Amino acid sequence: MAWTVTTDHLERLAIGAGILGTGGGGNPYMGKIVVSRLVRAGANIQVVSLDEVPDDATVVTVGGMGSPTIGVERPGSGEESYRALRALEKHIGRKVTHIVSSEIGGGNSTTPLRVATQAGIPVIDGDGMGRAFPELQMKTYIINGIPPTPGALCDYNGHTVVFDHVEDGKTFERYMRAVTIQMGGGAGYSFPLMTGEQVRRTAVPGTLSLAIRLGDAVLNARANHTSPVEAALGVTGGFQLFRGKITDVERRLVGGFARGLLKMEGTGDDLGRTLDIDFQNENLIARRDNGEVIAVVPDLICLVDADTGAPLTTEVVRYGMRAAVLGIPAPVELKTDAALRSVGPAAFGYPEVEYVPLPGYYANVERVAAVSL
Amino acid sequence: MAWTVTTDHLERLAIGAGILGTGGGGNPYMGKIVVSRLVRAGANIQVVSLDEVPDDATVVTVGGMGSPTIGVERPGSGEESYRALRALEKHIGRKVTHIVSSEIGGGNSTTPLRVATQAGIPVIDGDGMGRAFPELQMKTYIINGIPPTPGALCDYNGHTVVFDHVEDGKTFERYMRAVTIQMGGGAGYSFPLMTGEQVRRTAVPGTLSLAIRLGDAVLNARANHTSPVEAALGVTGGFQLFRGKITDVERRLVGGFARGLLKMEGTGDDLGRTLDIDFQNENLIARRDNGEVIAVVPDLICLVDADTGAPLTTEVVRYGMRAAVLGIPAPVELKTDAALRSVGPAAFGYPEVEYVPLPGYYANVERVAAVSL
Repeated sequence: MAWTVTTDHLERLAIGAGILGTGGGGNPYMGKIVVSRLVRAGANIQVVSLDEVPDDATVVTVGGMGSPTIGVERPGSGEESYRALRALEKHIGRKVTHIVSSEIGGGNSTTPLRVATQAGIPVIDGDGMGRAFPELQMKTYIINGIPPTPGALCDYNGHTVVFDHVEDGKTFERYMRAVTIQMGGGAGYSFPLMTGEQVRRTAVPGTLSLAIRLGDAVLNARANHTSPVEAALGVTGGFQLFRGKITDVERRLVGGFARGLLKMEGTGDDLGRTLDIDFQNENLIARRDNGEVIAVVPDLICLVDADTGAPLTTEVVRYGMRAAVLGIPAPVELKTDAALRSVGPAAFGYPEVEYVPLPGYYANVERVAAVSL
Repeated sequence: MAWTVTTDHLERLAIGAGILGTGGGGNPYMGKIVVSRLVRAGANIQVVSLDEVPDDATVVTVGGMGSPTIGVERPGSGEESYRALRALEKHIGRKVTHIVSSEIGGGNSTTPLRVATQAGIPVIDGDGMGRAFPELQMKTYIINGIPPTPGALCDYNGHTVVFDHVEDGKTFERYMRAVTIQMGGGAGYSFPLMTGEQVRRTAVPGTLSLAIRLGDAVLNARANHTSPVEAALGVTGGFQLFRGKITDVERRLVGGFARGLLKMEGTGDDLGRTLDIDFQNENLIARRDNGEVIAVVPDLICLVDADTGAPLTTEVVRYGMRAAVLGIPAPVELKTDAALRSVGPAAFGYPEVEYVPLPGYYANVERVAAVSL
């Protein structure tokens, strides 16, 4: 059943998408503000489940590319991704009928909603990651063989580049990244182009409603003076990996990414223990005490404020913060052999780390059923 | 009158284009070999003068982008520029009717001829520089306000990027350069798109036939035991600035360009004098003795072998070579205020050097009349 996005949904989405961002993906705050204003002004954003998309639909994802830092220093015009969509339509000579999210974690969670109001077409409940990842070839669409081109990139000034034919996702990522950097470090994209059949076969289903339900659980727990962390774990199918105090954050900029190491000392049940988290925008590997690996990408390692459940991103974590570390099993779409080649530890420069999946299922189910909100 | 390219023309073009490359632009040798083979196999390459192009023609330039060094290490497939042209046609939804050269100096002199055989359309006798320059915004087309987009770029693997809308030439250059580097440092382009009226208004006319006549004069002088240098000066309208021995070449790679300083000691009439040439791929400024500037970009500063008149490019000059330095007045199209902002000394990082034009006219005439070969 199709449902309509409300400002309450957006308030909850910002929290849920922040947690699913696993430390990266940028802050959904600005997008929430903008889309809420559009909804209050009468915009009707329809969300449909994957099951409701016709086989012959023309589907595309939209999102922002570039460093979250740039997005804060020079916010976009709000037109970039929409213009990229229009440029793609012009190039292929037909209209897009549905938008689907590329990345439910972080700031890209709200971009499809904004573009949906601009283009006047529905959004599909699902995405290409079920979390956040730093590179374009890490989308389940690309992992499962959808060609990355044609795709379009558009900047603040309306400069538009169409990638007509690029064979593989990694090469596409390099080309897109190079142009984005020349565009000042931030741009909006529209790719890959899919049929309804293709998006149904490759997307992580139900993640837009999942992020909203996750934010809703956190807000309800706050209101009811129960544990927001427990509430978040209930919705996502995750475990509490650790709870404690952040004692050190090392950050260095490597190849345009914020790489670093976060150190924690345990409190409560974890008193006397330590946790180290390697991150590259997103949190990648959690090691306890003397190096025992307890969670590995693509499983989600999410830091939240221990009391409020508010997401803590890589940019804001600092000494003294009290945090809970959630370990959420990755969606099954990220655990195939093909997926692990793109998003497993080796893809992030840790060939020596074995991926041992966290038990259980993302969002507590093997495949999220269609959800109406 | 239209004329047909022969293998003799190509032999001469390689020499003439090499001289007009002013030290840069890459070596026309490989292109000569390839196009000669096509001509011997029956390819009919028609050359028309600017006057013969209908106002409503669809004209585009084609060429290779990237470091000449890469072109030697990994020669292209020969399909890059042609595929870029086809991608552009697909994007705009109509066929290109004429090709015009972007850069008659160096290796890009033969690319339009090759693409003309692939596309089966004529080449216009003229180009966008009358020499070689390192960057895309330095074409007379762009200097005179032709929009750089839409344009297409294609690499060895068939990867194709269409630049749908970029406002200005310098930004376009940055985007194209960034993608070219990701493509491995070499790619073929097709841009800008022009009408017959536009190319007639902005091109440097007659430069394809000029380059062939220049090579012909050099070869004839060699055969007749007269001076190839004098013969080259006669065709181009140039002066001998200096003659001597190369005593030092400093090269350093700055921002992807071969920047450096070439030093000479005079012989004959120039005995006891010195000449220093600053170059950035192309030769930019010639200074005599204690720094007296005697020739400045956009005027052409061309090194040739003192005995044979063979062009000496920036990559091959070395200690001990005997060279004549030709100073050829730039085409009038490069001397307008708008042109000097793009191709004058300040554009190459020499704001302190004043452009004092060499006397006379490029190719001995203010505008080259249509020439039939």
